Amino acid sequence: MITTLGVLAAVLTTVSWLPQVRRTLSTRSAGDFSWSYLWVLSAGVGCWAAYGVAREDLSIILANSLTLALLLAIVATKAHTERRARGSAGS
Amino acid sequence: MITTLGVLAAVLTTVSWLPQVRRTLSTRSAGDFSWSYLWVLSAGVGCWAAYGVAREDLSIILANSLTLALLLAIVATKAHTERRARGSAGS
Repeated sequence: MITTLGVLAAVLTTVSWLPQVRRTLSTRSAGDFSWSYLWVLSAGVGCWAAYGVAREDLSIILANSLTLALLLAIVATKAHTERRARGSAGS
Repeated sequence: MITTLGVLAAVLTTVSWLPQVRRTLSTRSAGDFSWSYLWVLSAGVGCWAAYGVAREDLSIILANSLTLALLLAIVATKAHTERRARGSAGS
């Protein structure tokens, strides 16, 4: 039962990022995300993945490695759109 | 070492929400968040809290209970701003 709960939690918290990444990539808008949130969350998710490795818990490892990849897609979109905004503001 | 890693991961993934909630409450803007993301993530974080209870792992319980509370602050802000936008669009 516990492993099922862990797998369900892992799937939900990972899958939740798919509609968010789809929205961010389609709207090209990530201004509502705070940089501190994105960086600190990425560091935390990375630590959770390491925690999962240390505890040999596959659901924690899988969830957090995938989450990190999706999170970085949002970081890249936010960085890209802000760089373009600065570029067009400067020209 | 493992517990320290779990506590560090728990603190980072929880603390990351503080600057995000502060930004969302100050800008009153949560349009970039996808509803599916917020609801599915909330369900997942809730499952992680239950998983922590089942495994008697305080770092997982604490992290996810606090994260859920902060997540719901963003849900409330997004719901409130969208209701107002619909209200002013209708009048």
